[in-house]
Amino acid sequence: MPSSPPDDSSTLAGVAFQDPEYREAVVDLLGAIAYGEISAFERLAEDAKLAPTLEDKVAIASMAAAEFAHVARLNTRLAELGADPFEAMAPFVAAIDRFHEHTAPADWYEGLIKAYVGDGLANDFYREIAAYLDTDTRDLIVASLEDSGHAAFVVDRVRAAIAADHRLGGRLALWGRRLMGEALTQAQRVAADRDALSALLAGGVDRPGLDLAAIGRMFTRITERHAERMAELGLAS
Amino acid sequence: MPSSPPDDSSTLAGVAFQDPEYREAVVDLLGAIAYGEISAFERLAEDAKLAPTLEDKVAIASMAAAEFAHVARLNTRLAELGADPFEAMAPFVAAIDRFHEHTAPADWYEGLIKAYVGDGLANDFYREIAAYLDTDTRDLIVASLEDSGHAAFVVDRVRAAIAADHRLGGRLALWGRRLMGEALTQAQRVAADRDALSALLAGGVDRPGLDLAAIGRMFTRITERHAERMAELGLAS
Repeated sequence: MPSSPPDDSSTLAGVAFQDPEYREAVVDLLGAIAYGEISAFERLAEDAKLAPTLEDKVAIASMAAAEFAHVARLNTRLAELGADPFEAMAPFVAAIDRFHEHTAPADWYEGLIKAYVGDGLANDFYREIAAYLDTDTRDLIVASLEDSGHAAFVVDRVRAAIAADHRLGGRLALWGRRLMGEALTQAQRVAADRDALSALLAGGVDRPGLDLAAIGRMFTRITERHAERMAELGLAS
Repeated sequence: MPSSPPDDSSTLAGVAFQDPEYREAVVDLLGAIAYGEISAFERLAEDAKLAPTLEDKVAIASMAAAEFAHVARLNTRLAELGADPFEAMAPFVAAIDRFHEHTAPADWYEGLIKAYVGDGLANDFYREIAAYLDTDTRDLIVASLEDSGHAAFVVDRVRAAIAADHRLGGRLALWGRRLMGEALTQAQRVAADRDALSALLAGGVDRPGLDLAAIGRMFTRITERHAERMAELGLAS
């Protein structure tokens, strides 16, 4: 035996991808993120119609375009892994569409909060999972989740609206809780359906995994960050 | 008098922008193009919902994102010219919105043709006008009109659909004529409203202009290119 195995990432990735279940889980994950971005694009473009001014419309449309810009790289990587990008997305269409159906914003402010809080939740969740993946996949995912750079715009608009009408704060706080609840419901359904993706979190011979306590801590971190975002908007969570 | 005036573009631009009417016309033109792109983004994102497959949806959403990507540069240039980008767009909102209201696609194929033919018409028209402008403005406009690179996709999908159902060809040919008619109607309204923009075409002391015969030839060229695009789709014009 040589002294110690090299632990550079390309070797790790090579070893990891020899496990068909690992490859399947990565294809699932990239497919889910890609469809999530396409879907976010569509909903943000839809929300842009509710914008009170042309300037607001351009700001939200910029967020939509930024989401969409990530899709091409995810699709390229899926093709490199020998997967058809659209087949990879297919298992996640129903859950993501259902999430959006159940959280259709009633007005401009609900749309803004959904963009900010929903995007933040998805990003936190995928980043947590990415920590257990090979470096190439992790870098791709982190790049795909880069902030669309409009958080300040959302915070500014929502805080100003609440300052002008305090009743709005109560309604929007409830809305934030509903977004979180619906995201968890759909994420759970996906986890129950996709064995490879769930197994990924449990780890493998050559990959560290998460025990139940670690999964609990992960959800605590995600919930805490959600509460921070709500506080940033001036809302109870 | 010095021998001959320098004709490099920066000097030309400098001289041209000393004429307040020239500056006003350029602000109008950039505002119209910017709102046109924002509006095209919205309509294409809307059409993406009609896509029969996820692959088709991604193709049309890519066109939408490409249109939107040009807006930031136009807005930067408007700000450099001392104009508020959103005020510059305002005079064109009604005409462009009316164009879209009167040409709401009834199905996926009408949407595809509108994207291809409408985009082509707008591009030809703005390019014709850009030929009479200073180099900086011309380069910016030409860059803003770069083909979103999906023409081949549209041609492929429309031709295949007509091959499968010949009656479709008749309906879509009528649709192409309606798009052209509505574009001309709205363009004429804008020209009647915006004096600086119309005066631009007539030229100035230091800029060549168009006489009526030249304007006639310009419309002939635009009409011919429209007919070429329709033929490319396998449709009578």
